[in-house]
Amino acid sequence: MLSGELLVGQTAYRGKKGVVNGVNPATGAVLEPSFGLAESKDVARACELAWNAFDEYREAPLERRAVFLELIAENILSLGDELIERAMQESGLPRPRLEGERARTVGQLRLFAEVVREGSWIDVRIDNALPDRKPMPRSDLRLRNIPVGPVVVFGASNFPLAFSVAGGDTASAFAAGCPVIVKAHSAHPGTSELVGKAIRDAVTAVQFPEGVFSLLFAERDQAIELISDPRVKSVGFTGSRAGGLALVKAAANRAEPIPVFAEMASINPVFLLPGALAERAESIGKGFVSSLTMSAGQLCTNPGLILALEGEGTDRFLVAATDALGQTGEATMLTPGIHQAYQRGVSQLKKNDKITLAAAGTTNGATNACQANLFVTTAESFLADPEMHEEIFGAAALVVVCKSQYDMRAIAEKLEGQLTATLQMSDADGLAAHALLPALEKKAGRILINGFPTGVEVCHAMVHGGPFPATSDPRFTSVGTLAIRRFLRPVCYQDFPDNLLPDTIKRGNPLSLPQKVDGKIVVPDKLELIS
Amino acid sequence: MLSGELLVGQTAYRGKKGVVNGVNPATGAVLEPSFGLAESKDVARACELAWNAFDEYREAPLERRAVFLELIAENILSLGDELIERAMQESGLPRPRLEGERARTVGQLRLFAEVVREGSWIDVRIDNALPDRKPMPRSDLRLRNIPVGPVVVFGASNFPLAFSVAGGDTASAFAAGCPVIVKAHSAHPGTSELVGKAIRDAVTAVQFPEGVFSLLFAERDQAIELISDPRVKSVGFTGSRAGGLALVKAAANRAEPIPVFAEMASINPVFLLPGALAERAESIGKGFVSSLTMSAGQLCTNPGLILALEGEGTDRFLVAATDALGQTGEATMLTPGIHQAYQRGVSQLKKNDKITLAAAGTTNGATNACQANLFVTTAESFLADPEMHEEIFGAAALVVVCKSQYDMRAIAEKLEGQLTATLQMSDADGLAAHALLPALEKKAGRILINGFPTGVEVCHAMVHGGPFPATSDPRFTSVGTLAIRRFLRPVCYQDFPDNLLPDTIKRGNPLSLPQKVDGKIVVPDKLELIS
Repeated sequence: MLSGELLVGQTAYRGKKGVVNGVNPATGAVLEPSFGLAESKDVARACELAWNAFDEYREAPLERRAVFLELIAENILSLGDELIERAMQESGLPRPRLEGERARTVGQLRLFAEVVREGSWIDVRIDNALPDRKPMPRSDLRLRNIPVGPVVVFGASNFPLAFSVAGGDTASAFAAGCPVIVKAHSAHPGTSELVGKAIRDAVTAVQFPEGVFSLLFAERDQAIELISDPRVKSVGFTGSRAGGLALVKAAANRAEPIPVFAEMASINPVFLLPGALAERAESIGKGFVSSLTMSAGQLCTNPGLILALEGEGTDRFLVAATDALGQTGEATMLTPGIHQAYQRGVSQLKKNDKITLAAAGTTNGATNACQANLFVTTAESFLADPEMHEEIFGAAALVVVCKSQYDMRAIAEKLEGQLTATLQMSDADGLAAHALLPALEKKAGRILINGFPTGVEVCHAMVHGGPFPATSDPRFTSVGTLAIRRFLRPVCYQDFPDNLLPDTIKRGNPLSLPQKVDGKIVVPDKLELIS
Repeated sequence: MLSGELLVGQTAYRGKKGVVNGVNPATGAVLEPSFGLAESKDVARACELAWNAFDEYREAPLERRAVFLELIAENILSLGDELIERAMQESGLPRPRLEGERARTVGQLRLFAEVVREGSWIDVRIDNALPDRKPMPRSDLRLRNIPVGPVVVFGASNFPLAFSVAGGDTASAFAAGCPVIVKAHSAHPGTSELVGKAIRDAVTAVQFPEGVFSLLFAERDQAIELISDPRVKSVGFTGSRAGGLALVKAAANRAEPIPVFAEMASINPVFLLPGALAERAESIGKGFVSSLTMSAGQLCTNPGLILALEGEGTDRFLVAATDALGQTGEATMLTPGIHQAYQRGVSQLKKNDKITLAAAGTTNGATNACQANLFVTTAESFLADPEMHEEIFGAAALVVVCKSQYDMRAIAEKLEGQLTATLQMSDADGLAAHALLPALEKKAGRILINGFPTGVEVCHAMVHGGPFPATSDPRFTSVGTLAIRRFLRPVCYQDFPDNLLPDTIKRGNPLSLPQKVDGKIVVPDKLELIS
């Protein structure tokens, strides 16, 4: 069923710039078919189609855009087990994880359909004319958000469904009204083709212009050409720090610089406060290892750093954690390259004489398998060694034993930006938590109490973002409905007659959208009011 | 009364890195006193104070923040005529313009006080816990916007009050909860000191930590040090393209890159559609010249480009415009440097053999005075010559005579990003307007019908922004209440007990803020509901 073809609008054909194949990381076996890579002309054609589709797509009725998103979800479900099996082969991820990821992907598309219909993302603002104002009259001023233009999405290695071809970046860009060109991740080309066709078929069914979506398999040079094309206006990326920064640089060097939303590196510190450890050191230890080893540690919010005060509670935590980790089996990693990088990172820590290996998971030496590792060091050593602050992608974590709360705060203040920060605390830890929170708010996009950071809810209040290097722009999120804002810009319409205004800001509010009128929130009666 | 001192928190002292003096551009006279420029240690001290003030300032009650903004406004008014007279001496701008600008500055501060109290900028989002959800329970998730951190504001040459020390950037950063360090524009140091003291005194009165505000006079190297300091998290700038890009580059090269909101270059195209010219070519000609020559053309939204179809209507427009321009007297420009750049730009156009000088204003050769100039060219020449697309800061405009609507659209599509685009139209021009609008929406932050772009209302629906090079980030505005969003980032709080939540997102909504609860807008009953 797989063709190995590019999807350039509605035309599928083989790229001629060499080929790439999927590889089963559990066996090293090369998977058929090969996928033809895009040449420069294919990149240019996808950009041209996207640009030509932009005006029609962005001004089509919101209901049609919502139906389009729902249809993509249906088409993905219709792929059935073929999708799950191909994704398992290409990623080494187990069936339940991929079935869960598919549910998340489909749910995300449907949630964005609801968001499109609800319309508060349009941020309608109306300042009515004041013709009699002195010394100068005021014009009629109406603001709406419009989409920025075609968006390039880079598929992520670690979520072949939820952060790839029809993942959160694509769903939010489509919801905003942007055509999308996906650069498929080379680790899961077959999964990408299947999902790409699901989107292409939805474009056909809803009769949108073909350029609303293209899927390219491409080498690095063509990827840079893609984000350098003047018709591309924004970029979504989830991956490594080096990869993200290369895109940020290329986008900044354009004649018209554009934003890159890169979600990159985070070690997701977890602070174990003494009251919590006194109450439940063992369950924290077990819960932590479970979070650490989920998906072989290949999650953006993987808890890679634990901070705890020296003493009995921390000793009990370490016993529980090392015990749990020692019973954890190995798990196939996503790609041979990711496995090699993990091995390199772990052996660096092992060579560091300020670091002790506390525990390791079991291993049978399976191909590209991640053996979990837990290391321990002191606050003093951690503060002095930037290498210890770096993310190791995979199931490795470092426990930093602190002599005092001051050490903990000093570390909180010295950390780079993070996606998440977590406090394990009891009622007795209120003061310590209070003291840490201002530093954590400045460092992280999400702060959790008594949970673990893995498991990112797709909802309205989610922030999957954070200060550099967690992301390239902490003012935005890549998960949750607020992700739509990345791809919008405001435009003000001054003294327009009604027949030239878009429906969203016409007089009389024909679409019943929430508005801000002369500075006051005005909601149509479909919305709730509480006192 | 003026001291020439830096205001570093509550400490005023002379900088020792050389001096700068104001210059009266109408006479060339050097104004006393001299202002001591900041050394590196002064820059570092201002950043340290701002960083130390940040947590207390951002968590102070919103009401206190609002009162602070109102007090700044009062203190500026209390400066009385001394402020206006000094600003006139330093800028060459006439009294009524500066009195109007003061009213705008004060109104802007008061409007942001209202915004702070109303609170929808906090973007409170609550997804309630779903403990019984299958297969996984959902956590309690609460989002609020927090300020990004200390902001550096560069005073603008052309608005010594409204875009300088206590201008829109400062007001919106304070409203967001950010400490501000202003780098004063060297053209109006005395005006800056007066307004700086008004802010400093408000900080004292409201008993905020001193680092909430500092004012520095500085050379370029220290300005770059300032935005390179790791404690600075955002930058606001209004000025030239070269100046803005230098800041963008320095900010991108930091270990932690930060955004720069630079409002730079725009030629603000005005499209004269044939129906409008048939009806009222003469009044359009007069209105245009009035807009062009306002404040010697030194406005960001100055209409520097006119597009019209060849024919009788355009001939009548040109007669009216050249007649009006020929009667326009010269006006002092802001600085000798700006005057020289204007002269250079105009003489470049005069040398261009594809351009005709249609009219010039009167001149007596006064010092640093702007003589208005109106040039004419063809669409073909304009499309072929990038030089004609560049902004000349001052009262010079280029009329491009097009052979057809296709020429007009081709130009609309080829233009760089703009702050504004304007249509002069009648009912008969509906189709032509419809055809142009999609291109204009992609190019400009504000689109006007039957007005002129000068005169930027400070309100909720204003967008003073637009695609590059109009600004460095078209997703934001530097005028109007939406400007606050530049200095905010979202943070999600997961499973927090009430006593650790900030008041803005506590259960029970104690501050009666607008919220989005489980995806639905919920407004306290102080807000309006319409059906």
